[in-house]
Amino acid sequence: MNYDTFFRKQIDGLRREGNYRVFAELERHAGQFPKATHYKERGEAPVTVWCSNDYLGMGQHPAVIGAMHEALDRCGAGAGGTRNIAGTNHYHVMLERELADLHHTDAALLFNSGYMSNWATLSTLAGRLPGCVVLSDESNHASMIEGVRHSRANKRIWRHNDPEDLRRQLAQLDPDQPKLVAFESVYSMDGDIAPIAEICDVAEEFGAMTYLDEVHAVGLYGPRGGGISERDGVAHRLTVIEGTLAKAFGVVGGYIAGSAALCDFVRSFASGFIFTTAVPPAVAAGAVASIRHLKTSQAERIRQQSQVAKLRRRLDAIGVPHYANPSHIVPVMVGDPVLCKQISDRLLDEFGVYVQPINYPTVPRGTERLRITPSPLHTDADIEYLADSLATIWSELSLRRAA
Amino acid sequence: MNYDTFFRKQIDGLRREGNYRVFAELERHAGQFPKATHYKERGEAPVTVWCSNDYLGMGQHPAVIGAMHEALDRCGAGAGGTRNIAGTNHYHVMLERELADLHHTDAALLFNSGYMSNWATLSTLAGRLPGCVVLSDESNHASMIEGVRHSRANKRIWRHNDPEDLRRQLAQLDPDQPKLVAFESVYSMDGDIAPIAEICDVAEEFGAMTYLDEVHAVGLYGPRGGGISERDGVAHRLTVIEGTLAKAFGVVGGYIAGSAALCDFVRSFASGFIFTTAVPPAVAAGAVASIRHLKTSQAERIRQQSQVAKLRRRLDAIGVPHYANPSHIVPVMVGDPVLCKQISDRLLDEFGVYVQPINYPTVPRGTERLRITPSPLHTDADIEYLADSLATIWSELSLRRAA
Repeated sequence: MNYDTFFRKQIDGLRREGNYRVFAELERHAGQFPKATHYKERGEAPVTVWCSNDYLGMGQHPAVIGAMHEALDRCGAGAGGTRNIAGTNHYHVMLERELADLHHTDAALLFNSGYMSNWATLSTLAGRLPGCVVLSDESNHASMIEGVRHSRANKRIWRHNDPEDLRRQLAQLDPDQPKLVAFESVYSMDGDIAPIAEICDVAEEFGAMTYLDEVHAVGLYGPRGGGISERDGVAHRLTVIEGTLAKAFGVVGGYIAGSAALCDFVRSFASGFIFTTAVPPAVAAGAVASIRHLKTSQAERIRQQSQVAKLRRRLDAIGVPHYANPSHIVPVMVGDPVLCKQISDRLLDEFGVYVQPINYPTVPRGTERLRITPSPLHTDADIEYLADSLATIWSELSLRRAA
Repeated sequence: MNYDTFFRKQIDGLRREGNYRVFAELERHAGQFPKATHYKERGEAPVTVWCSNDYLGMGQHPAVIGAMHEALDRCGAGAGGTRNIAGTNHYHVMLERELADLHHTDAALLFNSGYMSNWATLSTLAGRLPGCVVLSDESNHASMIEGVRHSRANKRIWRHNDPEDLRRQLAQLDPDQPKLVAFESVYSMDGDIAPIAEICDVAEEFGAMTYLDEVHAVGLYGPRGGGISERDGVAHRLTVIEGTLAKAFGVVGGYIAGSAALCDFVRSFASGFIFTTAVPPAVAAGAVASIRHLKTSQAERIRQQSQVAKLRRRLDAIGVPHYANPSHIVPVMVGDPVLCKQISDRLLDEFGVYVQPINYPTVPRGTERLRITPSPLHTDADIEYLADSLATIWSELSLRRAA
């Protein structure tokens, strides 16, 4: 067997269907977000980034960068080991305390990425609770799906954001069987928000644990940035809140928050936690600074929401179709991978506007889109320019306008 | 079901068997490695760290820290997105070029951890090659085992470092079936080294791909730090070389190096790569600086080997039993989890020497050990002091001496 031939054929398949991914090579400039330099095959060009998940621009916040500089000088580059073997730094411990405080839980546990926190926690909980069945929202993120898959526990899919379907499915299960209801608060690609209280009502009625992924909500919602569960006053009802340090908090890493027993259990049994070098102390220090800032400052959240609303109004005015939702995510629906990439390429090459096309497998085929994420750092002029650029492309390509 | 009760019972089980893990909370001091501050329940104490995987102390190297400071000021804290969506920074691209150059491959692909690079690559290769069978060394790391498990491909375990057993097993397979031979160069816990050339001979004879984990070897072996495969002149014979940036390179992250087609395939299909925020630009910049330094400087490698040899001689002189191997890892065998923790606790509390006890599941039950990793930064006096401390404890506890 010629393995490279096999790999090339698979890649060719992606190219044919328009799903081959070309990464935009960027250099973001601290102090000038959302501006960046785009490294092209020939030369460089300035761009405005409109699709980052550094939602609030905390990645350039002086408090965050300052804390990282300080920890770097104090403790060096890496952690030097797994958490158990020489790799637990004072900053990791401080960060876990900060996260537990953020969600008002007894404990929290840090991972190297949000993907790993979902994968390792779900595979450990579902895999080690004898006879556990996982009830998974049909739109859950890949990392949750893979975690449940890895556990080999039984899984039932319930209709997206539908507590009544969840109830029907829970009612069919053995009352004594361990159960885990897994869902997200803000769904990344459509930007819709789960009815957390109603889902908790149902889960509690049937004695199920609840696992809530808040990666697109922490830092962004709730008076202290505790996410939708904080905003809705239901954080105390969840068994696990999972979040990320890589989006609104602007750094990198993932975590869970929950009871001391649960966090200790995952800490002690999750292979993906045990056998991984801890994140650098400077990363932990930056995350602590970011969380602390967003616990008290409302300015970033208020300004973000106002820029989101402005962009939506401008898109409505020019008739560019976008998916209505109650969050900060503005999906401009295209519905075709080749066209989606074509629009994105023109935005980048002709207008210096960078919005990555979102194709399969990140979204279902036929729902390809431009996913726009306005931040507090996008000016009104940036919004005008983006809308004008889209309007020009929409005309040139004779694309369908919204009513 | 009371879930917290279940978690607590499982934790109690770990405590009863002596396998409950207490993380030592440290603060390493850049410029003073291997010295650190140990945060205890009451107060702080200075310690010498003897079990870090920052094998060469590159985590405090001025070139590494300087590169990280510069990238932090230039690009900010986090990457701002997944590699596909706004998260590819110029430093990531430079780092992947540097890694491909290190291993003389066409391409390389960066992950957030060594665990993730093994898990994601093996699950993708073994899962997507139709009918693939994985031939896995019986001592492979948890991240490789979990990656193969996740793929649901057929797996055969061959005897540790035994090319003849590998041959017997390959000979039983359908010649047309895709095959992947997965193994490590330096095994972390015993410190023994694989006969890579012989394994490649067998794999080539049967048309199998080879996947070599070099996480405990990159930076440490070979004239440019390319690992055991470089030292032995066999790098070109391997399909995939996997490595880490978190050990000898002193930062964090994992990677694979291989053909352009293979790396593009993994890049395009591996869920754990696609759906993860990229490492911070500063992390990538630090790794580039570290790799570049160790490509030309032999001083760290030479001094490390000399300190390893000195420690072994001292242990022999005082009769503390250690496992002979040709690497930089010095396992002092204890064989009991409770005793192992007891020795470690006394070293820490009475002598200010930190060597984490290594218990199940990191090593098989009954092979508990103190895993000592001398670095170029440990002085001769540090070695004397460690040996004297061990001799004292060995006498006080009447432990068995080596012949």
